Amino acid sequence: MNPGDVKALLFDVFGTVVDWRGSIVREGERDWTPRGLRVDWPRFVDAWRGHYHPSLERVNRGELPWATVDELNRLALDATLEEFSIPPETLSETGRDELNRAWHRLDPWPDSVPGLMRLKRRYIIGTLSNGNMSLLVNMAKHAGLAWDCVLSAELARAYKPDPRAYLTAVELLDLRPGEVMMIAAHAYDLHAARNVGLRTAFVSRPLEFGPQANPDLTPDLTFDVVADDLEDLAQKLDA
Amino acid sequence: MNPGDVKALLFDVFGTVVDWRGSIVREGERDWTPRGLRVDWPRFVDAWRGHYHPSLERVNRGELPWATVDELNRLALDATLEEFSIPPETLSETGRDELNRAWHRLDPWPDSVPGLMRLKRRYIIGTLSNGNMSLLVNMAKHAGLAWDCVLSAELARAYKPDPRAYLTAVELLDLRPGEVMMIAAHAYDLHAARNVGLRTAFVSRPLEFGPQANPDLTPDLTFDVVADDLEDLAQKLDA
Repeated sequence: MNPGDVKALLFDVFGTVVDWRGSIVREGERDWTPRGLRVDWPRFVDAWRGHYHPSLERVNRGELPWATVDELNRLALDATLEEFSIPPETLSETGRDELNRAWHRLDPWPDSVPGLMRLKRRYIIGTLSNGNMSLLVNMAKHAGLAWDCVLSAELARAYKPDPRAYLTAVELLDLRPGEVMMIAAHAYDLHAARNVGLRTAFVSRPLEFGPQANPDLTPDLTFDVVADDLEDLAQKLDA
Repeated sequence: MNPGDVKALLFDVFGTVVDWRGSIVREGERDWTPRGLRVDWPRFVDAWRGHYHPSLERVNRGELPWATVDELNRLALDATLEEFSIPPETLSETGRDELNRAWHRLDPWPDSVPGLMRLKRRYIIGTLSNGNMSLLVNMAKHAGLAWDCVLSAELARAYKPDPRAYLTAVELLDLRPGEVMMIAAHAYDLHAARNVGLRTAFVSRPLEFGPQANPDLTPDLTFDVVADDLEDLAQKLDA
């Protein structure tokens, strides 16, 4: 692959750039256990996130009307509280809204900020996340992610891996698909991007699902680039 | 006005943040006169830009199908070359495309970069321009404008001052209109923003139309803030 053809890098965000699981576990233990939400936070966050992909798929199949990730996370929070048999009065509606905003306050992996700064010198760097625009904008300010542009599946009203999510972003950048590289820690995302002509870079995030998880990290060598983290990606893309 | 209520500042760009006229005149005289396009550049740029508002209005009225500002500028360039009786062979199609991209390479006013950096510490700062997303992203990289998000009338497929342009941006930020302030050097833009509930700040740009122009700069004191430039705006918004 000649990186000279690539003009823009679009990043998956949850897991690829920020550590959603670690961030919410930390916030939960620090802020929410003292406020009365006494749960096993790693298990709670895993259950909460467990609703995520099924609900996006229901939207993509048309079984649910369009709803943002903020809205879907909020519904999933209610369901998770019930699954954990938390008495409803433990957390008010306002408290639930506030906890749901934890998804706007996710911390970057240690290499994300320096890696993005390097990549930004040579490429347009942007998000292409299922997260809604406001979530991504707030997260960028919280985490110091210096995106050139925030793009979201929200702009296509179709969630990744639906082709429309990728093609809407490519069209808004007024580039050809082959001038855009999708970067993600998840093979399904890259397969879908590649199917509509984008370049692909896989980034390993062995800790995304926690220290106990045992994700399959065998590199799929059909991606254009396989990198250990975003600094390694910058190196491999000559940035 | 209590700036504490305002969470995001949305900026008009052409004229308010960047000096479109001076930038294109400079590029024309430096790069395009030597390539054979021997015109009076200030007059040429004024004529080119003269097509802008009428064509946006035709799109908003439905007389033209949706077209981006890049596309409208390109049509206007052909018309302007004809008005100036430039023989068609003077500038190839590729040359015209390249000259049209001058709108992606506009320089900021001297206060824009430092003013935005200050405002960014306290507020979400974004564009809300009629310029298309790719134009705004490329311009931000050229001019060093550290937007938190690039938003455009393109996302609403309706040009300012159509209410949909403002309301789409407010919705994508998931804010109430009163939490968003529109910043522009043009009263019509601020009147339209205010009509749908946004806060307003007027910035004086006496040189937008060149040193010979004599724009009416009598401040409209009904705007929430009137500022001399973006550093003065930062001062007045406690940033």
